[in-house]
Amino acid sequence: MKAPESKSGSVEITGAAAVVVRRFAESGSADVPDAVAIEEPLEIQIVYGARDARHAKSISITMRTPGNDAELAVGFLLTEGVIRDADEIESIALGSFDSDKMGNDGLAAQRQGILRTRRSEPNTVTLELLPQVKVSTAALQRNFYTTSSCGVCGKASLLALHTVCPPRAANTFTIVADTLHRMPAILRVSQGVFQQTGGLHAAAVFDCHGVLDLMREDVGRHNALDKLIGTAAIADRLPLRDRVLLLSGRASFELLQKAVMAGVPMVAAVGAPSSLAIEVAKDFDVTLIGFLREGHFNTYHGADRIRAA
Amino acid sequence: MKAPESKSGSVEITGAAAVVVRRFAESGSADVPDAVAIEEPLEIQIVYGARDARHAKSISITMRTPGNDAELAVGFLLTEGVIRDADEIESIALGSFDSDKMGNDGLAAQRQGILRTRRSEPNTVTLELLPQVKVSTAALQRNFYTTSSCGVCGKASLLALHTVCPPRAANTFTIVADTLHRMPAILRVSQGVFQQTGGLHAAAVFDCHGVLDLMREDVGRHNALDKLIGTAAIADRLPLRDRVLLLSGRASFELLQKAVMAGVPMVAAVGAPSSLAIEVAKDFDVTLIGFLREGHFNTYHGADRIRAA
Repeated sequence: MKAPESKSGSVEITGAAAVVVRRFAESGSADVPDAVAIEEPLEIQIVYGARDARHAKSISITMRTPGNDAELAVGFLLTEGVIRDADEIESIALGSFDSDKMGNDGLAAQRQGILRTRRSEPNTVTLELLPQVKVSTAALQRNFYTTSSCGVCGKASLLALHTVCPPRAANTFTIVADTLHRMPAILRVSQGVFQQTGGLHAAAVFDCHGVLDLMREDVGRHNALDKLIGTAAIADRLPLRDRVLLLSGRASFELLQKAVMAGVPMVAAVGAPSSLAIEVAKDFDVTLIGFLREGHFNTYHGADRIRAA
Repeated sequence: MKAPESKSGSVEITGAAAVVVRRFAESGSADVPDAVAIEEPLEIQIVYGARDARHAKSISITMRTPGNDAELAVGFLLTEGVIRDADEIESIALGSFDSDKMGNDGLAAQRQGILRTRRSEPNTVTLELLPQVKVSTAALQRNFYTTSSCGVCGKASLLALHTVCPPRAANTFTIVADTLHRMPAILRVSQGVFQQTGGLHAAAVFDCHGVLDLMREDVGRHNALDKLIGTAAIADRLPLRDRVLLLSGRASFELLQKAVMAGVPMVAAVGAPSSLAIEVAKDFDVTLIGFLREGHFNTYHGADRIRAA
């Protein structure tokens, strides 16, 4: 896989914009400079199919904070089950595929391993898949919320996740309670853009000693996690078997889904979990922790893996 | 429009589930009963087209907290620009359209204003539109993030919003700063399920005197707002010209989009706004307030509409 311009593993800090706000306190008001989190749409396109019959398709548009866009796209494809391994990606490029020049005849000749993209489109990422990768168009339109056989319900969402989830190792990851208590403060210190804007979600992985390994931020919590998982995938570090995932906000089905797809054994959220997030945790034996703040936390599954010392 | 089983305007409190958690404090741990916010998928289907050629189409699947599902579906259709007025809806029913019995010939005869739905599917809402309502299939696949002419960027998202937004009256809504300061506490007291679970976003509208008018909760902040707007639409109360919208979390593009579509003149968020939310506020002249908590707030547009007394 050819990497895009940015080095994998580097954090691109482009997430904040300067504004002037009028700040009101009970004592009065004043105009002051401030910073806000940048939000812009990102379109993810894939190019797939045999060399002599390539197809280009837009598979997602998400509102995200610019930066680490290639990682976001890779994480999205992996955690939504479109691809099973980052090695299935032939190349990643910023910009959209030049469909004007695309045709079943001329394409194979016109490209020699080089994806033609329009560099003037900073809000599009195009991922070219290897010709042998099978992409089901139905799978792209479907998602984890439903399967065709059993309608729309939480149980169907879980079943759909089982059908695409890669095999998981037995969960042997344990951690000391005090290590968990220390993690939110470490995350806050490392959240550079959040400090400025108060407007970004973060996803981070720590090792069992509480050492911060990797952190990503975004206006969308699912995007922050996709960026994190995409970064790990590009560095060939999936599954993340010996890491605890810390989420700055709440834990929903979607976030647990992504954690499961990345092989994470333990998820800790600063906020509350939802009912369906707990179901995923039980079904896939992921230790799930919520309300991790101010010296307390709750465990919703896998409490026995929290050690006293 | 025929209303579904639930009375419009009533809040269906079905949002919390009982769980047992192991709660860890620095002093030790104990198993205790607790409550979590329920998260389940909801599919929104529409039935549209001429009487002798009806079509059924699934247009959205969202993870939501059950309750006020009909209102959520109506709010979604309005704020995403699929319909322009709740009067375009002929009927609302829980369950999916019975496509087995559907055909261009037999349908008009088989239904006499009665939508056949499968009651055993509690996670699907079907909205039948009047035959004369034009639904563009392209519009359903597109969204506010992009227009075909100018690619994917924040500016394109704003342009797309301008093309579907109903005409807005001049913004003359003003409020006293002290009234704003009081609103978050009123919202917290009224958030029944949040008190139990800590897991729900809220959207509420207040009048200019700070009186709470309507509040809805959901695991998804966009769903909470769709439920609120759908409730107002069913009661024929749109546009919400003389109301301030209070959001329990952050203000993103998507939430400002929905506020603009509902004609709201002022949005106040307990959390941070994003850059694109501010752009929408400026473009559509919506007063935008962020970080409304603990006796402070910031204004990002329309500060002159905040009065001292």
